[in-house]
Amino acid sequence: MGDGNVKVLGAWASPFLMRVRVALHLKSVEYENIEENLLEAKSELLLKSNPVHKKIPVLIHGDNPVCESLIIVQYIDEVWSTKTSILPSDPYERANSRFWAAYVDDKFFPALRMVLVGTTEEAQKAAMAEVLEGVVLLEEAFKKLSKGKAFFGGDSVGFVDLAAGSLLAWIKVIEKFTETKLLSEAKTPSLVAWADCFSTHAAVKDVFPDVDKLADFGMKLRAKLLKAAAATTN
Amino acid sequence: MGDGNVKVLGAWASPFLMRVRVALHLKSVEYENIEENLLEAKSELLLKSNPVHKKIPVLIHGDNPVCESLIIVQYIDEVWSTKTSILPSDPYERANSRFWAAYVDDKFFPALRMVLVGTTEEAQKAAMAEVLEGVVLLEEAFKKLSKGKAFFGGDSVGFVDLAAGSLLAWIKVIEKFTETKLLSEAKTPSLVAWADCFSTHAAVKDVFPDVDKLADFGMKLRAKLLKAAAATTN
Repeated sequence: MGDGNVKVLGAWASPFLMRVRVALHLKSVEYENIEENLLEAKSELLLKSNPVHKKIPVLIHGDNPVCESLIIVQYIDEVWSTKTSILPSDPYERANSRFWAAYVDDKFFPALRMVLVGTTEEAQKAAMAEVLEGVVLLEEAFKKLSKGKAFFGGDSVGFVDLAAGSLLAWIKVIEKFTETKLLSEAKTPSLVAWADCFSTHAAVKDVFPDVDKLADFGMKLRAKLLKAAAATTN
Repeated sequence: MGDGNVKVLGAWASPFLMRVRVALHLKSVEYENIEENLLEAKSELLLKSNPVHKKIPVLIHGDNPVCESLIIVQYIDEVWSTKTSILPSDPYERANSRFWAAYVDDKFFPALRMVLVGTTEEAQKAAMAEVLEGVVLLEEAFKKLSKGKAFFGGDSVGFVDLAAGSLLAWIKVIEKFTETKLLSEAKTPSLVAWADCFSTHAAVKDVFPDVDKLADFGMKLRAKLLKAAAATTN
């Protein structure tokens, strides 16, 4: 199946889409990028391609839709396996990469999201505390996984880089909103250096969102979600 | 590294532990099973082996701890790769297996758990509705993935079998508590047949919990969790 047969359903502001696009760039796979508007109704193509979760991103390879960003990234790694590997080859290192990527999705991202859309000041404060603990854990993980190199994946962008790096623009947005530094030379010096390497990497820089534009979108998304939450509880 | 060097930290009632044990049985790997008491304080070994989540199961292979049941299962599949494969070899089939295993963990299990430990009747009812939708989705997924064979994995127990099959004993407990059939000939005939094949499989039957004993444990766990929830909200 040729590379030309690849489509990605996403939305520019989504960190989960960014993972998929960067993975395709790392593998030099050409693809058609189809933009979904997260503030409007979902498209027919999205509902048909991901009937269970109805969420972006979806990779459509030929006639086959693949859903869930970390599953898509593993699919890309396995289909275009002759190019630079995203997951390491050693099973224990693979398990550690999967562990930290899952940590980002299951713990870190939900806390980060709650800082933005928490409905009470108390919930937002608790979420911020969790985020600040999270970055310290990720700093420690970086030291172990990177082995003194630039990325979680060592010399090249790997699975955890995609998982965590895709949140960097949103981290900057939240730093702006809350006037609190999440990454700092004092507490997370390795992550500060890594963030710079990641966001300027050739596979990343063209899809790294503009922070001001993202902040503006963040305010709209927050308003939409809070309105939906209020409608549910009323 | 010899097989003799494998330890599993778990608790007999945990579906997540069951996945790991069945995977090791499928690969004919010998291991030491170390029982953690979920109703008591966590052991030093558990806290040291899984400092981030502090949860069972943990596989300890030599000096290396591996956490999170689906990550452990993939680790086992990759380390003992010459034995029957747990994940299929085709990347698209692998992605589909990962998708449905993630569905079980992210959507189906939380709903199932909420039927048991929901603090209001309303929450329990909503969770039950979600579970009943979930089994229909899983029935459809089974038809696609099994290709007319006995298991989600086709002729042999695969990744989705481990993910979903480990919940079967708990499904029986919840059927008992709620006097509601979750799997039935009328709505999920394929899953009814599959449940029978899975629970009597040679790699499974010795670790399939006794349903009465599990129901008794379920009542104690429920009491403990509701007490903890009440303490948080008071």
